[in-house]
Amino acid sequence: MSVPLPSLDQIRDAAARIAPHATLTPVMRSDALDAAVGAQLYFKCENLQRGGAFKFRGACNAVWSLTEEEAARGVVTHSSGNHGNALAMAAATRGIAAHVVVPDGAVRAKLEAIEQAGAILHRCAPTIAAREAKAAELQRATGAIMVHPYADTRVMAGQGTVVLELFQQCDGLDALVTPIGGGGLSAGCAIAAHGIRPAIAVYGAEPAGAADAAESLTRGARVDNFTPDTVCDGLRALIGESNLDALREHRVDVIAVSDEETIAAMKQLWHALKLVVEVSSATVFAAVLKQRERFAGKRVGLVLTGGNVDLDALPW
Amino acid sequence: MSVPLPSLDQIRDAAARIAPHATLTPVMRSDALDAAVGAQLYFKCENLQRGGAFKFRGACNAVWSLTEEEAARGVVTHSSGNHGNALAMAAATRGIAAHVVVPDGAVRAKLEAIEQAGAILHRCAPTIAAREAKAAELQRATGAIMVHPYADTRVMAGQGTVVLELFQQCDGLDALVTPIGGGGLSAGCAIAAHGIRPAIAVYGAEPAGAADAAESLTRGARVDNFTPDTVCDGLRALIGESNLDALREHRVDVIAVSDEETIAAMKQLWHALKLVVEVSSATVFAAVLKQRERFAGKRVGLVLTGGNVDLDALPW
Repeated sequence: MSVPLPSLDQIRDAAARIAPHATLTPVMRSDALDAAVGAQLYFKCENLQRGGAFKFRGACNAVWSLTEEEAARGVVTHSSGNHGNALAMAAATRGIAAHVVVPDGAVRAKLEAIEQAGAILHRCAPTIAAREAKAAELQRATGAIMVHPYADTRVMAGQGTVVLELFQQCDGLDALVTPIGGGGLSAGCAIAAHGIRPAIAVYGAEPAGAADAAESLTRGARVDNFTPDTVCDGLRALIGESNLDALREHRVDVIAVSDEETIAAMKQLWHALKLVVEVSSATVFAAVLKQRERFAGKRVGLVLTGGNVDLDALPW
Repeated sequence: MSVPLPSLDQIRDAAARIAPHATLTPVMRSDALDAAVGAQLYFKCENLQRGGAFKFRGACNAVWSLTEEEAARGVVTHSSGNHGNALAMAAATRGIAAHVVVPDGAVRAKLEAIEQAGAILHRCAPTIAAREAKAAELQRATGAIMVHPYADTRVMAGQGTVVLELFQQCDGLDALVTPIGGGGLSAGCAIAAHGIRPAIAVYGAEPAGAADAAESLTRGARVDNFTPDTVCDGLRALIGESNLDALREHRVDVIAVSDEETIAAMKQLWHALKLVVEVSSATVFAAVLKQRERFAGKRVGLVLTGGNVDLDALPW
């Protein structure tokens, strides 16, 4: 599904729209991690965002972009993860209904969180086709507006607000690294970063077991059929079509990291920053460690995307 | 060993002295944790302090309180934990020698951190008597100044700076809760809190298996012989004499919590705040949860003392 990419102005509008609801997340630093890379690292802590992930930004922008008439019909999405929860929370800020389609077998704690945020859960078989069919059915039945997790202009604009904040919090960044899953964050951030600071180098970190963005860029055509094999549950989605266009247009350099590298990086982040970050977030630090010669001496912004982990099943 | 308690002015002097070196740690909040207690909770994040614990404040104040002539002789302490590391880091900020006496059998990772911070390690048998003898021997041999982990006026003053910051960061607190180990933090914070805001209620949280402060207060005489039995490794020390005086003078109400309650509270903190806090720190939230009726509707400051945990041996 191809959707228009947001402009820098639309990202700025998104920032104004979500400001009353979203958390201005802090940027953290660590001498030990700087020394490990030989660079100055600025960690943008979206694990401290509402709902524990950057996803609230995009969902909130989508919800508050609706007209009164649209909003009255509610919103719908399919996601058993951070986006479902984010949309539920965002809908609650406007007092509108949120329908979240969740596959059978999804983690119960996540579903409880989504329900607790006030959404109505709808179960379906655990396939992409079943999810999409169920969401379409709900759109027809309720008139609710679809808010896709990443193939959505409003969502990409919302995620791009991470960079507007980061640039206000630290001057003169030479490079920016975000994880790549469906590409909502990486596309929004690349657009915002180059819009403000054309010389910045933009990187994406992708699990080697879900490196469809890297492969799509290399091949020159979008991979649209693969089976992810990674512990990074937030990064298993196929890159969206428009999202891939944004990465190509902004010459985003993708660094693939193994799960072992990511898990080791996650532990280093917990240890040095004293922050709970989820495994998907750690890909950015794993990527910088892996290719440290490209970052040596630079000022590097890294987006720590979320902190929703199962403390009873840590990956090490 | 009885030492003078610091005054509010001495705590203010300490704040000025450590300002160039210490981190102004953030205060964090969580709707979910507020709801669990029915109060407004303000978490002062000393896990984000340099070295990962509040201990840097006291050590830094002690180091920078020395005359040039004293400083040239270096500092010495006995501690295999956060205080040893903090003193090593503080000494490094002034470019002076730090001797740290560590008992045989101490955790290797902690010793490596102390050495990496630039201190000279001295091993001894794992008894209090052996530690004190070794430290006294080093004082004689090198002229180094002893900086006790908590029975030290300068250290108590440094720890009290937590409250000066907290009060600047949030107005109108009704209550303050710190953990109680040797009593450096609890004494310094009680003095600062009542000095500025006489009506504030000050609480201490103590592991039931190391509740010597509670027992000492009840009995009216300091317990000076007991065997701690708690997972809270930072709170096993016997309360200092002067530290106990401060708790009595400031009517600090001690709430004892079981290790089970503390571990459950630790997990809730990690989950809701996305912060890595050590088990000793979680006693404060466990205490507030346990006696929530005393805190209902109040604005409560809680000091999260540290974040140095062994990620391979979490207590749950």
